[in-house]
Amino acid sequence: MFKLYYAAHTCSLAPHIALEDSGAEYELCRIDFSNTQQHSADYLKINPKARVPAMVTPRGILTETPAMLAFIAQSYPNARLAPLDDPFAFAEMQSFNSYLCSTLHVAHAHRMRGHRWAYEASSFADMQRKVPESVGICYDLIEAEMLKGPWVMGDNYTIADPYLFTLAQWLEDDGVDPKRIPRVIEHRSRMSERPNVKKAIAEELAVESRA
Amino acid sequence: MFKLYYAAHTCSLAPHIALEDSGAEYELCRIDFSNTQQHSADYLKINPKARVPAMVTPRGILTETPAMLAFIAQSYPNARLAPLDDPFAFAEMQSFNSYLCSTLHVAHAHRMRGHRWAYEASSFADMQRKVPESVGICYDLIEAEMLKGPWVMGDNYTIADPYLFTLAQWLEDDGVDPKRIPRVIEHRSRMSERPNVKKAIAEELAVESRA
Repeated sequence: MFKLYYAAHTCSLAPHIALEDSGAEYELCRIDFSNTQQHSADYLKINPKARVPAMVTPRGILTETPAMLAFIAQSYPNARLAPLDDPFAFAEMQSFNSYLCSTLHVAHAHRMRGHRWAYEASSFADMQRKVPESVGICYDLIEAEMLKGPWVMGDNYTIADPYLFTLAQWLEDDGVDPKRIPRVIEHRSRMSERPNVKKAIAEELAVESRA
Repeated sequence: MFKLYYAAHTCSLAPHIALEDSGAEYELCRIDFSNTQQHSADYLKINPKARVPAMVTPRGILTETPAMLAFIAQSYPNARLAPLDDPFAFAEMQSFNSYLCSTLHVAHAHRMRGHRWAYEASSFADMQRKVPESVGICYDLIEAEMLKGPWVMGDNYTIADPYLFTLAQWLEDDGVDPKRIPRVIEHRSRMSERPNVKKAIAEELAVESRA
């Protein structure tokens, strides 16, 4: 049994979907960002980074989305969520996920989290102005070079798919014109039709609307 | 046979050390950042992201340091560079590496690469002012919560060690007082005594000084 600490509209949706895909038993625990619950003393014991996702496992707590996704895939090999027997294909998938966490998600975060990297309101505004360009460059690269299709890694669905889908929720708000990245948008649409994706999103939004 | 595209004083030192540790056959190819060779048409064919490291393998080209490090460990299991038979321990190691690429390295990059995320010189200067704090927070967390000791993951040396060592080259220039993170500094010192580390650094600097 796992316990996933999540917040709606964050990258914790990616491991949430992957847990559904894996068939693992898990429970959800919502962290309320509107009350800055991620900085509460109780949550800092779970994740001293004050971020989501965090996943409690029988062996200990995991953080960082790419690591968590690979762990889910390796723990449930029958779900075939990663090319576990092919180190090169596994590395290609990990490379994709690493780009999402270290480049795409970081570019996006400059829209609302500029205080992580600067002090002045004028800098935050300047960062926000650049987000359509910096996030757009990432999506252009994903569109042209990285998304093999129909799934991220080609014919086989992997943990890279829920991760791209999750971050792609935000691209219009980041000011990226979806018309310039038709393959990414087609991938997002196809992902949104999967029952596990619908279930994960519905679970997060149902709790959100009751909160 | 692998071919590692690298530049001195960048995170490509991490896979360089890991390749030494693995016993793999490899050759080095220096990318000259002083001539912006990373943006040359020839290099963009290798890595359209215009970054290092990139590693040519018989199966194709890999980018992104955490993916490359795990690939080296999985490809040379006898070198015991990762807990390959324990998905949870492997995930903890990957979580560490993911934090380095998506948080520590990103915080550091705001000292010299502010143009990735903003337009104005005033923003770049503001970002530079924040680097000692933002990078310092990362090292405080690594010191207190993440570095198990004596190696990153505890008793066993892994690919997380050359990665931390590589980024820790920059902490004084980032304005972080080494006295506040004695365990990180002790790890860096111990790493610097390893013959493979000395060899990798000497190779990079010898080419640099001839250039």
